[in-house]
Amino acid sequence: MKQIRIGLIGTGYIGRCHAIAYSQVATVFPLKAELVLDYLAEITPELAEQKAKEFGFKRSTGDWRDIVNDPNIDVIDICTPNFLHKEIALAAIANGKHVYSEKPLALTATEAKLMYQAAKKAGVKTLVGFNYIKNPTTQLAREIITNGEIGEVIHFYGTHNEDYLANENTPLDWHCIKEKAGLGALGDLAAHIVQMSQYLLGQEIISVIGDMQTVIQTRPNPNNLQERLAVENEDQATALVRFGNGCMGTIETSRIACGRKMGLSYVITGTKGSIIYTQERMAELKLYLHDENPARQGFKTILTGPLHPDYKNFCVSAGHGIGFNDQKTVEIRDLINGISENSTALYPDFEEGYKVSRILDAIALSCEQKRWVNVEEIE
Amino acid sequence: MKQIRIGLIGTGYIGRCHAIAYSQVATVFPLKAELVLDYLAEITPELAEQKAKEFGFKRSTGDWRDIVNDPNIDVIDICTPNFLHKEIALAAIANGKHVYSEKPLALTATEAKLMYQAAKKAGVKTLVGFNYIKNPTTQLAREIITNGEIGEVIHFYGTHNEDYLANENTPLDWHCIKEKAGLGALGDLAAHIVQMSQYLLGQEIISVIGDMQTVIQTRPNPNNLQERLAVENEDQATALVRFGNGCMGTIETSRIACGRKMGLSYVITGTKGSIIYTQERMAELKLYLHDENPARQGFKTILTGPLHPDYKNFCVSAGHGIGFNDQKTVEIRDLINGISENSTALYPDFEEGYKVSRILDAIALSCEQKRWVNVEEIE
Amino acid sequence: MKQIRIGLIGTGYIGRCHAIAYSQVATVFPLKAELVLDYLAEITPELAEQKAKEFGFKRSTGDWRDIVNDPNIDVIDICTPNFLHKEIALAAIANGKHVYSEKPLALTATEAKLMYQAAKKAGVKTLVGFNYIKNPTTQLAREIITNGEIGEVIHFYGTHNEDYLANENTPLDWHCIKEKAGLGALGDLAAHIVQMSQYLLGQEIISVIGDMQTVIQTRPNPNNLQERLAVENEDQATALVRFGNGCMGTIETSRIACGRKMGLSYVITGTKGSIIYTQERMAELKLYLHDENPARQGFKTILTGPLHPDYKNFCVSAGHGIGFNDQKTVEIRDLINGISENSTALYPDFEEGYKVSRILDAIALSCEQKRWVNVEEIE
Amino acid sequence: MKQIRIGLIGTGYIGRCHAIAYSQVATVFPLKAELVLDYLAEITPELAEQKAKEFGFKRSTGDWRDIVNDPNIDVIDICTPNFLHKEIALAAIANGKHVYSEKPLALTATEAKLMYQAAKKAGVKTLVGFNYIKNPTTQLAREIITNGEIGEVIHFYGTHNEDYLANENTPLDWHCIKEKAGLGALGDLAAHIVQMSQYLLGQEIISVIGDMQTVIQTRPNPNNLQERLAVENEDQATALVRFGNGCMGTIETSRIACGRKMGLSYVITGTKGSIIYTQERMAELKLYLHDENPARQGFKTILTGPLHPDYKNFCVSAGHGIGFNDQKTVEIRDLINGISENSTALYPDFEEGYKVSRILDAIALSCEQKRWVNVEEIE
Repeated sequence: MKQIRIGLIGTGYIGRCHAIAYSQVATVFPLKAELVLDYLAEITPELAEQKAKEFGFKRSTGDWRDIVNDPNIDVIDICTPNFLHKEIALAAIANGKHVYSEKPLALTATEAKLMYQAAKKAGVKTLVGFNYIKNPTTQLAREIITNGEIGEVIHFYGTHNEDYLANENTPLDWHCIKEKAGLGALGDLAAHIVQMSQYLLGQEIISVIGDMQTVIQTRPNPNNLQERLAVENEDQATALVRFGNGCMGTIETSRIACGRKMGLSYVITGTKGSIIYTQERMAELKLYLHDENPARQGFKTILTGPLHPDYKNFCVSAGHGIGFNDQKTVEIRDLINGISENSTALYPDFEEGYKVSRILDAIALSCEQKRWVNVEEIE
Repeated sequence: MKQIRIGLIGTGYIGRCHAIAYSQVATVFPLKAELVLDYLAEITPELAEQKAKEFGFKRSTGDWRDIVNDPNIDVIDICTPNFLHKEIALAAIANGKHVYSEKPLALTATEAKLMYQAAKKAGVKTLVGFNYIKNPTTQLAREIITNGEIGEVIHFYGTHNEDYLANENTPLDWHCIKEKAGLGALGDLAAHIVQMSQYLLGQEIISVIGDMQTVIQTRPNPNNLQERLAVENEDQATALVRFGNGCMGTIETSRIACGRKMGLSYVITGTKGSIIYTQERMAELKLYLHDENPARQGFKTILTGPLHPDYKNFCVSAGHGIGFNDQKTVEIRDLINGISENSTALYPDFEEGYKVSRILDAIALSCEQKRWVNVEEIE
Repeated sequence: MKQIRIGLIGTGYIGRCHAIAYSQVATVFPLKAELVLDYLAEITPELAEQKAKEFGFKRSTGDWRDIVNDPNIDVIDICTPNFLHKEIALAAIANGKHVYSEKPLALTATEAKLMYQAAKKAGVKTLVGFNYIKNPTTQLAREIITNGEIGEVIHFYGTHNEDYLANENTPLDWHCIKEKAGLGALGDLAAHIVQMSQYLLGQEIISVIGDMQTVIQTRPNPNNLQERLAVENEDQATALVRFGNGCMGTIETSRIACGRKMGLSYVITGTKGSIIYTQERMAELKLYLHDENPARQGFKTILTGPLHPDYKNFCVSAGHGIGFNDQKTVEIRDLINGISENSTALYPDFEEGYKVSRILDAIALSCEQKRWVNVEEIE
Repeated sequence: MKQIRIGLIGTGYIGRCHAIAYSQVATVFPLKAELVLDYLAEITPELAEQKAKEFGFKRSTGDWRDIVNDPNIDVIDICTPNFLHKEIALAAIANGKHVYSEKPLALTATEAKLMYQAAKKAGVKTLVGFNYIKNPTTQLAREIITNGEIGEVIHFYGTHNEDYLANENTPLDWHCIKEKAGLGALGDLAAHIVQMSQYLLGQEIISVIGDMQTVIQTRPNPNNLQERLAVENEDQATALVRFGNGCMGTIETSRIACGRKMGLSYVITGTKGSIIYTQERMAELKLYLHDENPARQGFKTILTGPLHPDYKNFCVSAGHGIGFNDQKTVEIRDLINGISENSTALYPDFEEGYKVSRILDAIALSCEQKRWVNVEEIE
């Protein structure tokens, strides 16, 4: 059996989730190649060594270039802060590596385009970590829509709201600095719901008009709490959008939405039915079908189970629930199996990551210029 | 005790709700004047007589002008289709009557302005039937916001979605005809959530950008089901808005939103907390306060009860629930008591009705011209 | 049209609800007789006069016997504290009056039996105020069960929990005194869910084993808060029951169940489906059907609307909601129309009230003797 | 670092869950010993070999005795059908192995007692797989209760209802055969909620009275679907219970409860507050505190997060959710770390498993004899 050797760069919040998913994936799913946790990079050799031990990687380094240049590595897994994605990905692609990058793919659509085009030209495979679409519940939603069970989709309302920066005295971190993060809530959170809307509807967003605000304009300097520094990107944003088939949509995002801990949600209205979902109840899909007996109509709460996509490998009983890292496990199953077979494309790949970046940049531009923007206006 | 004599014009859906509320209001609330159900008009004398008997009115007529011209009538209550509001109200005002009109106040802001200015000039009192703001639960939401319990409001998301026209084979009715209804979902439904947003925040919407669609473009002719006639106004609309204090907002409305039976809802985000409400659970307010012990944070479901505004007159136990017509009963209590005392203003009055019409027209204009519109652009 | 003249005795909590329902019933429903609010009694002539005015009654008295003895009165409506039900009802029956009594019918099954037998012998009609079964939502549940939509019912779980006495420093009131109230939570609350179980299943409870506790054993003397008096009846009780057809059931009740404001609820399991309901969401019925496509199974939330029993008279739109007093309005519609026609029986009548008392007494006996009790053991 | 070598016996439903948890535990949690997946047994050498490969075990065998007798194995993990638990555990204990067994510990309390006493005598450590108590949400519930946040607990209502046998034409399997499974729903499901009640309250159940039924009395012979065989144990059961401190409780269980996919749930009432939980929403705890401002009281929905027990190792953001196997991962962390340190006791151990069996047997006896049974009556 072919081996696929992973080089993991970055071990913070999301790097740790990757590690957990790597550890269980071969037990959960049949893999078409042998997964090897080979090489791990962090900002110091010491931290790298410690994390390699913790995450079960064989080798470690304090310089990510060592991994990118290592001929034994097949896949570069990028879990660094956003501003490093481009440089690492381009170096990896130049060396013919497949690249698995966390979202958002880049700080701007321009960067993302470079990355997508480089990968295309090099013929390497790419995957972006939009893990929430791997949840069986959201896969079920897509299946229902694709089947036409709710008719033609006529409206999409989607949010990704959280409250991790709701307190005005939370110190400034890289999320708030343009050259580290690019956009604010749009880049960090809305990237998910924008991509998910395209996944669910099988349609692309083609025009947008948005509005945004930096509500908390200064935050304490983490190195000197008495001083307050400027927040450089938006805390909240909203946008009206149109999909390619004319379907209307609304996107909302915030990182200061008090009480929303995992407020990724969608309400999808079709001509014959509707779907409602929130990631805070990640095992439940609400489905309404208008053609049913009018005296017995209502939203049905479906608990995800073994009859739904990618669930039964975790547990054969319905309603028992899978967790956040299990979504990542499905994603990594797709990565390994997709790379092991030449014919299979990975999804969502850098092209999709670029398309999402373009939409986010279009929203930002529409906010700035206070007008509708065609996504194609963004290069 | 002074008498206040009502002349009711129109006895359809909402006229019937008025009648039920009239019948119970004096038992539920102490009134400052004696309510007299005096005169009722319908389109034929026969129907008027039957309805007068059913609703407990003393006299009836097949011509609404009889009521407007009757010197014994104090209040004209307009429950007719929208296109008649203006004519009746102007005639009533001309005769010095107080006017209680259903929403939307008029087919256009221009009409509404005429009505509001006429009433102001004549010195009569006016009230528009935005009954949902009289629900104790929404009154509680306003109280929480006004108290500053959730800090400064930074985002308002509001909907009024229903599905009464979701079936494409439901025959065309007056709601779909411009000269009878004016706007579509915006006028019939969004009027409520737009007005409610201003009530809750104590702020006015000053600029808007919208999008709208007539999804079901033809419907069967009710007189010849084989033939299909054009639907003349929008089935669904969305808008981004800004309130006077800079607060961002989103409004969504639809009359074809499968599964939403009473989808009037709001999510209000403040700097220190949030509120979530849907009219389908009209006795529940969800409240989140960010300053609580972080390990015990969460949305609390408050069941409306006797400690909340205008509840205990219906029932002295919490969580027992009041109904749709009870909201109308609170509204009519406000009408009677407000008219009985010279000093008290009614709310929401024709000025507020006009302001709402102006916002709806601004949204429609912004959809047509695909640009942000300042509400003041609408006359 | 025949007149039905009401004599109302008692104007506290529930008397007020009757008054509100009386005020609106003729507007909401077509009645087969003319309802006359004729005579009202309270403990003093002054209070009676004030309440008569407030509730729209023509005459008033400080002595309930005046009403019972008045030849012009057709129906005696008993809204007094429980311990007076028997005396008033027996006097009314002796005078050939129809009797409409609040629940629980009496302090003991023995008393209730006397009342039921007297009414039967006298040929007068009787109705007990188990108003929650008049809610369209619970009527819908019965319809679903009767239709066989959930197959054969195999388990009933029902509660009536509230928290009106949860605070140990709430002073003692008549609810806690045996000779005023009889049983505690069982009599005041469980009466509802026991009766409702029989209504829903169309089956009678025939054997029981219970457990009960007086958790808060003393409460402040309302006349001297420094002193604490003994609570004489149970704060909470539970029982396993069997219905006549062998169906298993569980009943739970408490007046100290923190957070349950209107915790009347049921979970009904059938061989082909299930129903879940709580009175705190009185407009929602959850329905699960096991025969549906296994990949689309789930509990459906049905919002009560005009296609369900007795809803459309309040409002013709689904999901708009009716309130607590509206249930009473349906009950009074049944009263008036039932009395106006000789052939129609009222339900639930004193016989049903007696049967409920017998079950409650059986539960109390089973707690005392720590054994299963056949309901027939209670006289 | 010390090694702990696992011998896994049985690889069906729950064995697979163990395997997934083993695969990720060292990445999720810091372990105090090195976990070695060493030896695996199944009913044939071929199946064992295949599963060893799939689950990452080094060695395999078709005879579980090989593992029990292997001197290199430290822990015997029993995931076989219930009827084999006793024999394997006793053999393992005799060889000085620590034993990790799935629930229910044995077919009867008598068997369980033998096992518990043997382990105690041998000085080996034991753990029973009541994994649901390892969920951070239920750990949080215990923390709230232990802190006294809801005062003294006065009532416990718990269920474990599922519908895996709701269809009467589902063929007979070992769950329905007494000598394979022992009790029916009580043993398979109620074992969880009974144990959980003791964990949550820190109290033992001391007396019980139950009721039970085999609703579906025959099922198709899996080898000849035309023939129907007798179901030998109960489909549903309920019991009233008393805890050692006098607290009242109710337990309900069913394997034919249509619509309940993971109906493990509890409602815990205290003198100062209440808790509500259902495993179908395993990331949510509902908490009500009675002492709060009466006008702002209500059940709060707490989403489990990094501030709650054992959550942050999976994910550092609240509300992102952990899954079924993650509970098992916490359990295995407890196993490994508990065994690595002499001083630490495992919980829940065989003694607790025995106590649970005793309660279940007491319920069964109380059903048979239709009387209250003291748990101590069961040996």
